[in-house]
Amino acid sequence: MDIKRIGVGPRMSKAVVANGMVFLAGQVADKAAGGSVAEQTKEILATIDELLAQAGSNKTRLLSVNIWLSDMSAFAEMNSVWDGWAPQGNTPARATVEAKLAGPQYAVEIMATALV
Amino acid sequence: MDIKRIGVGPRMSKAVVANGMVFLAGQVADKAAGGSVAEQTKEILATIDELLAQAGSNKTRLLSVNIWLSDMSAFAEMNSVWDGWAPQGNTPARATVEAKLAGPQYAVEIMATALV
Amino acid sequence: MDIKRIGVGPRMSKAVVANGMVFLAGQVADKAAGGSVAEQTKEILATIDELLAQAGSNKTRLLSVNIWLSDMSAFAEMNSVWDGWAPQGNTPARATVEAKLAGPQYAVEIMATALV
Repeated sequence: MDIKRIGVGPRMSKAVVANGMVFLAGQVADKAAGGSVAEQTKEILATIDELLAQAGSNKTRLLSVNIWLSDMSAFAEMNSVWDGWAPQGNTPARATVEAKLAGPQYAVEIMATALV
Repeated sequence: MDIKRIGVGPRMSKAVVANGMVFLAGQVADKAAGGSVAEQTKEILATIDELLAQAGSNKTRLLSVNIWLSDMSAFAEMNSVWDGWAPQGNTPARATVEAKLAGPQYAVEIMATALV
Repeated sequence: MDIKRIGVGPRMSKAVVANGMVFLAGQVADKAAGGSVAEQTKEILATIDELLAQAGSNKTRLLSVNIWLSDMSAFAEMNSVWDGWAPQGNTPARATVEAKLAGPQYAVEIMATALV
């Protein structure tokens, strides 16, 4: 098996490990859905920590991250949480753009790729 | 040659194979352009199957997929086709957001990465 | 060290090299911010050339590129610059969608992945 999948659902997997890398699905908040941007970002980053751990990786090994905000006016609020979480000295490449997400309860979605 | 390109055009290639992976260009419908979201999604997924085959891969080896919908209200209709196509037990990581696409005839765009 | 980071900031790195690939952060214009789409695209592509060089790569080794335009009506203007820059015979996979970017002075953002 050269591909290991984590949290395999009928529509997508939560993480896919192959070729020495782990590809995470776009993560949105669950408990914090509908809550503040800061709360949603905190939950998402905690979920990413968990998924990276399950894949044998961690946030110091992040390569590239895509962030979508349903409203770009939340940029500073999202970053206030991101900046406290981002591994200093080992920050990933990143791009953040605005996009309407799968439901109005979601203000933030984050998709990450890391080295295992 | 450590990079193999498929469908090389002056602006982009349809697929790029390197490092044991294949990176597909964002696919939109051609014949089904202007048609229903379901029709567009079917054509796009068939094109992805073809490009993956040309690269020596297939949908059970998908790693990560980005989907853009020109209107998020089409989420269920797109998923109704996706769910029938997605390889059960081997689903990729995925993120779906809303974005205006290159022309109004396009309702769906899908960009995929797979292991060769 | 199996990961090399270039332009490491507290929020993100400008480029991350790992696994034989380089992952660039989403690039926006600096000097040309607020200027024409063509001017912004030129500056961004020059920055990408520089970052690829720092990573030991170059534009003929691009694998996959994501482009965001704050207004899809700029598609032709962005492409007029892109088409003159894109390495003929070695074009990457690419997807372009519309998205509001981090500030109104930005009309174009480009995120690229290349083989080192």
